[in-house]
Amino acid sequence: MERVDLIISNGWIITNTPKGQFVGDIAIKGGKIAEVGSNLREKYQADKVIDATGKIVAPAFANMHTHAAMNLFRGIGADLPLMDWLTKVIWPLEGEFVSPEFVKDGVSLALLEMIKSGTTFYLDMYFFEEYTAEVIKEAGIRAGLGFGILDFPTKVASSPDEYLQRVEEFIKTFKRDKDILPVVAPHAVYTCSPETLKKAFDLAEKYDVPYHIHLAESQGELAQVKEKYGTTPVRHMKNLGLLSERVIAAHMVWLDEEEQEAVAQSGTKVAHCPESNLKLGSGIAPVSDYIKKGIKVCLGTDGAASNDNLNMLEEMSTMAKLQKGIKLDPTALSSAQALEIATANGFESVGIKAGRIKEGYDADLIIVDANKPHLQPLYDPTAQLVYSAQAGDIETVIARGKILMENYKVLTLDEEEIYKKALYWKEKILNKLNG
Amino acid sequence: MERVDLIISNGWIITNTPKGQFVGDIAIKGGKIAEVGSNLREKYQADKVIDATGKIVAPAFANMHTHAAMNLFRGIGADLPLMDWLTKVIWPLEGEFVSPEFVKDGVSLALLEMIKSGTTFYLDMYFFEEYTAEVIKEAGIRAGLGFGILDFPTKVASSPDEYLQRVEEFIKTFKRDKDILPVVAPHAVYTCSPETLKKAFDLAEKYDVPYHIHLAESQGELAQVKEKYGTTPVRHMKNLGLLSERVIAAHMVWLDEEEQEAVAQSGTKVAHCPESNLKLGSGIAPVSDYIKKGIKVCLGTDGAASNDNLNMLEEMSTMAKLQKGIKLDPTALSSAQALEIATANGFESVGIKAGRIKEGYDADLIIVDANKPHLQPLYDPTAQLVYSAQAGDIETVIARGKILMENYKVLTLDEEEIYKKALYWKEKILNKLNG
Repeated sequence: MERVDLIISNGWIITNTPKGQFVGDIAIKGGKIAEVGSNLREKYQADKVIDATGKIVAPAFANMHTHAAMNLFRGIGADLPLMDWLTKVIWPLEGEFVSPEFVKDGVSLALLEMIKSGTTFYLDMYFFEEYTAEVIKEAGIRAGLGFGILDFPTKVASSPDEYLQRVEEFIKTFKRDKDILPVVAPHAVYTCSPETLKKAFDLAEKYDVPYHIHLAESQGELAQVKEKYGTTPVRHMKNLGLLSERVIAAHMVWLDEEEQEAVAQSGTKVAHCPESNLKLGSGIAPVSDYIKKGIKVCLGTDGAASNDNLNMLEEMSTMAKLQKGIKLDPTALSSAQALEIATANGFESVGIKAGRIKEGYDADLIIVDANKPHLQPLYDPTAQLVYSAQAGDIETVIARGKILMENYKVLTLDEEEIYKKALYWKEKILNKLNG
Repeated sequence: MERVDLIISNGWIITNTPKGQFVGDIAIKGGKIAEVGSNLREKYQADKVIDATGKIVAPAFANMHTHAAMNLFRGIGADLPLMDWLTKVIWPLEGEFVSPEFVKDGVSLALLEMIKSGTTFYLDMYFFEEYTAEVIKEAGIRAGLGFGILDFPTKVASSPDEYLQRVEEFIKTFKRDKDILPVVAPHAVYTCSPETLKKAFDLAEKYDVPYHIHLAESQGELAQVKEKYGTTPVRHMKNLGLLSERVIAAHMVWLDEEEQEAVAQSGTKVAHCPESNLKLGSGIAPVSDYIKKGIKVCLGTDGAASNDNLNMLEEMSTMAKLQKGIKLDPTALSSAQALEIATANGFESVGIKAGRIKEGYDADLIIVDANKPHLQPLYDPTAQLVYSAQAGDIETVIARGKILMENYKVLTLDEEEIYKKALYWKEKILNKLNG
């Protein structure tokens, strides 16, 4: 018999392919899905077997927009508008605290939260990203690390050109890394000049890496861009030649029909962040319309300071219900579409073959314990994963064939140590906030 | 030293009173909160002490609109419009399966889910409610049981008058019960004639019990009522003299300004069900406007067949974010307001003194384990309970001083037995659905 590393046996398998959902087995070898079928234990000799009887086996999540280190600011300034929250709370705190050590500890906490909630890839935008590579590798997941670029000076750089120089060094360091995907990440069109935006894009082109930016998030942004450039954020990007398949634009709440067409034609991806957009009062992106127009939509939580968690399962559920609610149409977005957006669409937006339970795909998977009152009776595993489950129902998480969490126990990170460090930063931050 | 039954010691206490949140102790005696303060272990001799260090102690939830037995239909017909879902899926299934046994088993499953997610009171509307009293008492929670009334015949009754006669017997049986509050529950203005609605109200008045009805839920309902009565559902109720403090109206999605004023002046309560309204494509009730007009808003999950769970923590989080999102205003509904709506407002709508952590109030409480990555660092317990937590973080649930769940273990119900019965009904229902 052929040997494989792992068989997940007799689970309710949700494939994110036209095959849909069925009870079966998954054989995993060399980090990839070797076969999906029935009775695979009779066909392969497996080093390990996980019995998934009565459980749901689904693709792991790809969180396509976050600021992982901001976990250390979770819940601070809740209930404030975006611009106040940024300028009065978050930016001053960042000015005071953000450092390589802060970022590393914040990301560790975020990684623990991500693994516990079934996320095995995240696309980030922040400072000192280079210091997080080590802990991401330890955790066993993959990340697209967006090196943040601003026109104003921070601890990272004092001028746009210095940022761009740093970004280039950063890309060179990680270009061939198997865990880290370097990403060029100008913050937004209201914080970066057209020149900075274009130079950043040239860098992304030169090294063939993604370009990640906040775009058309709030009406406040629209007003600023209108005043400065006499147009809308999306048209401004289009005028600069910066709508492209390479671009993953976060938020994209405020787009008129013409802008939606332009985004679709360019292949620009949308990283939808419904809960952050609701919570900051930014609005609701009509992504079911975007999808109909052919735009590739993926899903992100945004940072924990505005959400206030990195819970992709909750985000996916909110997204699906929200589209039905604003469209007054329960068919606006199905549970199967929602799951695909939260999984395959994310991975595929950065060229990773994962997020589907299909031969040859990376084995990035979650196993959900359905033996919970809120998941019984189990009639429709996809619908019940999207609408009924909680992230805490995820008991096992596998990334590229490696088990990161088994029976609710994270195997790759030291949980107690991470909480200790979070407490250390909490006390420092509270001292500052309390004057 | 004075004796008390229980002290919850050193927790982050969220009071739902102007006191806000602080670290302290709660002493409980005879089912009620005897004192909230500091160092209560030095003041009282307690039969039991729960150490809540680093944990969040909050009022338990009151789920103010559900159909508990429908847990057995969870997830069936997901992604269908309200009227199709009702007429093509749910009503035929109910016609086939609903019986005293079905209702009892469905409610048992729902009670298990409610306790695990911190709900200690629910307001129901369904058939054969009288058969659920026993299992509710066993579980240790309280319920308002709405005896459903329709103009068309079901297994319960063959004419409106027969329903009303049954309701009266039902009220007489439970009028003095300490666990069960009988409620008169005409289904809706499009399924009950004006005469039935009025006779039902007279019964509620005669016995001084609440009147629970679905109202102004969808545009489909508005069209039906317009055609039949030439007016809107809320105006129809007003014309019949049926807006009153006694009325708890579920949904209330579609109200114009004038209707909002009428509802406020009458004291009619709104049982807001945001997730069901989203998922069925019914719309989004602007409850932050209602609150400003003085309407008492409480919160419900609706039945698990349209939500698809009874998770009040998730419902509360969705409600708060949704109001900010539709109003483009992050101050539209604060986390403290959201918690009050999900707890105190519910209990108080049916005259129960619970939902606040305050001397003399019933000890209906939850303890949340904050030692989770998504709840760290813990800066603002109320905000983090509303925006970051999951129902599965609730480790202990207390109702009228009695511990129903401790360290995630439900003490009052037989979990395995409940799953077995759910599986029994699942197989019967699947046989029917598969022809």
